[in-house]
Amino acid sequence: MKSHRRELVFKVPARRAFVNITPQVEEALRESGVREGLVLVNAMHITASVFINDDEPGLHADYERWLEELAPHEPVSRYAHNRTGEDNGDAHLKRQVMGREVVVAVTAGKLDFGPWEQIFYGEFDGRRAKRVLVKIIGD
Amino acid sequence: MKSHRRELVFKVPARRAFVNITPQVEEALRESGVREGLVLVNAMHITASVFINDDEPGLHADYERWLEELAPHEPVSRYAHNRTGEDNGDAHLKRQVMGREVVVAVTAGKLDFGPWEQIFYGEFDGRRAKRVLVKIIGD
Amino acid sequence: MKSHRRELVFKVPARRAFVNITPQVEEALRESGVREGLVLVNAMHITASVFINDDEPGLHADYERWLEELAPHEPVSRYAHNRTGEDNGDAHLKRQVMGREVVVAVTAGKLDFGPWEQIFYGEFDGRRAKRVLVKIIGD
Repeated sequence: MKSHRRELVFKVPARRAFVNITPQVEEALRESGVREGLVLVNAMHITASVFINDDEPGLHADYERWLEELAPHEPVSRYAHNRTGEDNGDAHLKRQVMGREVVVAVTAGKLDFGPWEQIFYGEFDGRRAKRVLVKIIGD
Repeated sequence: MKSHRRELVFKVPARRAFVNITPQVEEALRESGVREGLVLVNAMHITASVFINDDEPGLHADYERWLEELAPHEPVSRYAHNRTGEDNGDAHLKRQVMGREVVVAVTAGKLDFGPWEQIFYGEFDGRRAKRVLVKIIGD
Repeated sequence: MKSHRRELVFKVPARRAFVNITPQVEEALRESGVREGLVLVNAMHITASVFINDDEPGLHADYERWLEELAPHEPVSRYAHNRTGEDNGDAHLKRQVMGREVVVAVTAGKLDFGPWEQIFYGEFDGRRAKRVLVKIIGD
């Protein structure tokens, strides 16, 4: 069994954003030489998500608005977590809706995707360097 | 390490439905010959989910009602995504709540499940053929 | 390829609670002898979650309040599922928001975690013994 590890680093200039990271995951897969196996892609930070959906700006605007309805950023006093001096209580909730990780099949050396699947990094507390882990196992 | 791949195809006649796909996943596992490993089951489309819960019609009615409260289908003008000509903006949000995929342990050649665990395909934009991927790795 | 399986048992005295299970998962990893691979940690019951986030009591209070807003326990008549004689309809919904499982990379014999990642068991219908499965594969 082969295994391969790569970290991706993102410094999103805004508090929130969605970044298509499919090309970086594909590059890590090529490096790995794995032909059949699984890829795990996960946020290493707990106020960010990795998820799979469509690369369509209207949809991303819908996610932004919807997540803000489900878990508003303000007032920051709304969250007990923010008594620690943080202002990112909402980000910990948004991340649970969108998820921490995806697991993707590798078949014949490629990400085994349906027609519209793309991998996104979802940042909910940006403006600093944060990491995503890509771990690939297989043959 | 062995690997095995199978696609399941669903054409749900309604816009939304939950389909128990455990038997098909078990069949794919038997085909694979894997005794110890992991099974990944994921929707290949981004307006559908694969999740594990109870096969109880009342619960499915509760999910349907709850998801419609969290992300109503109408008015379709509510979603920026629908400006592309689609009417499935809600389906992309519902899928995030219910999830894209499950990973299940394989032990002694069987799905290693608790007493009530069953795998479901959750369709949120049906009435056309859509696919689920089953990828199995192990020995 | 090695594989290792361990069940953890929890009997939470309250209906709902979050329990940090990272030490038990680390112990299972040590037992396995796996140096490079993947760990799957999943609730074996469908009214409980396994998720990764911060070990901070204010955050856990925020999750508790937020999940109760999204899917209130009462009135229990609110859920069609409860017509079966159960009173845990809400727990099946809360579990979908928080997730069934996590998959964690194993690198150099350790859980390959970012700085704040901790694994939690989320109980939404406690006061009885319930199980979590840890399955580890790799070399």
